Amino acid sequence: MTTSTTREGAWQPGPRSTVRRLPERAAYDRETVEAVLDEGFVCHVGFCTDAGPVVIPTGYGRIDDAVYLHGAVANHALRTIGDGRPVSLVVTLVDGLVLARSAFHHSLNYRSVVLYGTATEVRDEAEKRAALDAVVDQIVPGRTADARSANPGELRKTRVVRFSIAEASAKVRTGGPKDDPEDVDAGGIWAGHVPLDVVPGSPVADAHGGEDLPVPSYVTDYRRPGGA
Amino acid sequence: MTTSTTREGAWQPGPRSTVRRLPERAAYDRETVEAVLDEGFVCHVGFCTDAGPVVIPTGYGRIDDAVYLHGAVANHALRTIGDGRPVSLVVTLVDGLVLARSAFHHSLNYRSVVLYGTATEVRDEAEKRAALDAVVDQIVPGRTADARSANPGELRKTRVVRFSIAEASAKVRTGGPKDDPEDVDAGGIWAGHVPLDVVPGSPVADAHGGEDLPVPSYVTDYRRPGGA
Repeated sequence: MTTSTTREGAWQPGPRSTVRRLPERAAYDRETVEAVLDEGFVCHVGFCTDAGPVVIPTGYGRIDDAVYLHGAVANHALRTIGDGRPVSLVVTLVDGLVLARSAFHHSLNYRSVVLYGTATEVRDEAEKRAALDAVVDQIVPGRTADARSANPGELRKTRVVRFSIAEASAKVRTGGPKDDPEDVDAGGIWAGHVPLDVVPGSPVADAHGGEDLPVPSYVTDYRRPGGA
Repeated sequence: MTTSTTREGAWQPGPRSTVRRLPERAAYDRETVEAVLDEGFVCHVGFCTDAGPVVIPTGYGRIDDAVYLHGAVANHALRTIGDGRPVSLVVTLVDGLVLARSAFHHSLNYRSVVLYGTATEVRDEAEKRAALDAVVDQIVPGRTADARSANPGELRKTRVVRFSIAEASAKVRTGGPKDDPEDVDAGGIWAGHVPLDVVPGSPVADAHGGEDLPVPSYVTDYRRPGGA
């Protein structure tokens, strides 16, 4: 957890984004929040409807203080949040398992960001293209330079919403277990932590001629930045 | 996506859990839903408050049709959902990156489960213990046999809620890109998919004597089941 800031400094935490439990794990500075947003590529978006809460997992792309989401024009969730209702957006990176001597002190190492804000449908074509590029490059940095970009028909079939970050907080846990002294003294139980990493397997070229082309370096060298 | 069922068959999809977009990716049978719930160990829980939607990432443990969540007694989210308001609970497993020739057809391979239901605080001590064991074993199967189980003081400090599954749906995407024929014919762009796997690093024994004990086999052999 760093306390340095980038760009305009920290977002203002509000009542929902202020971390109350284990505040020593909390961070509100841009650098920490943006690092998590930039490493992840799947978020969970929550909003309220008359029928209750809805949470959907979806890809995203970040540009400055905006997180872009996209889907088909008929996508119900995007249409719903596009009306400006409050939205919560969470990115969670799981970095490891923490095995304490006591069941009570078992934990996970993770970095998560919880954002609050509102979303607006993007109708400007240039912003829409930039958002879609950001979504693709969020998943595989460098890919938009090679992929055939969206044509007008595809753009019409795609709904893009811009989620503007109003409040942000990060939570970070790193390191080993924190057992009670009695359990440490008693001994006899292995305790420690196991790092977890997201690792790419071998690229699988598709059956339509992809196998005749060299695999791009952004695929062969693909690596998530990894946890603390 | 399988259509077979286990135990009592499928949960009934409702208006929020019926998958409208790409219904060919949807599954409502127990086997598919339970396989995702049992492979994951972090969920995103969403609920509505007067201040708007809240989504929190947290560990969980499943026993039959209940998903147990735990936290400190003072945990605000658990206290809030314990009042019986509608809750959405999502587990998402990311299995790979899908690189199409067109930006438009880029995708992710994933398995996700969206659950709707309500939560109740667990006050029965035996159920509370079973729930906490399930949470620990969800993260590292087999660990509860070794860990020192919760003492009465720890149980008092822990809030456990039982989320009862009322509606469930799964979405699954597997395989390579689905490009338009014109893009395949045009050629020149590598296309395919890259599997992603969650891989454990070397276990790190803690500094308090953990390194003198043999590393348990459930740690050395730790492996997430992995995607399709």
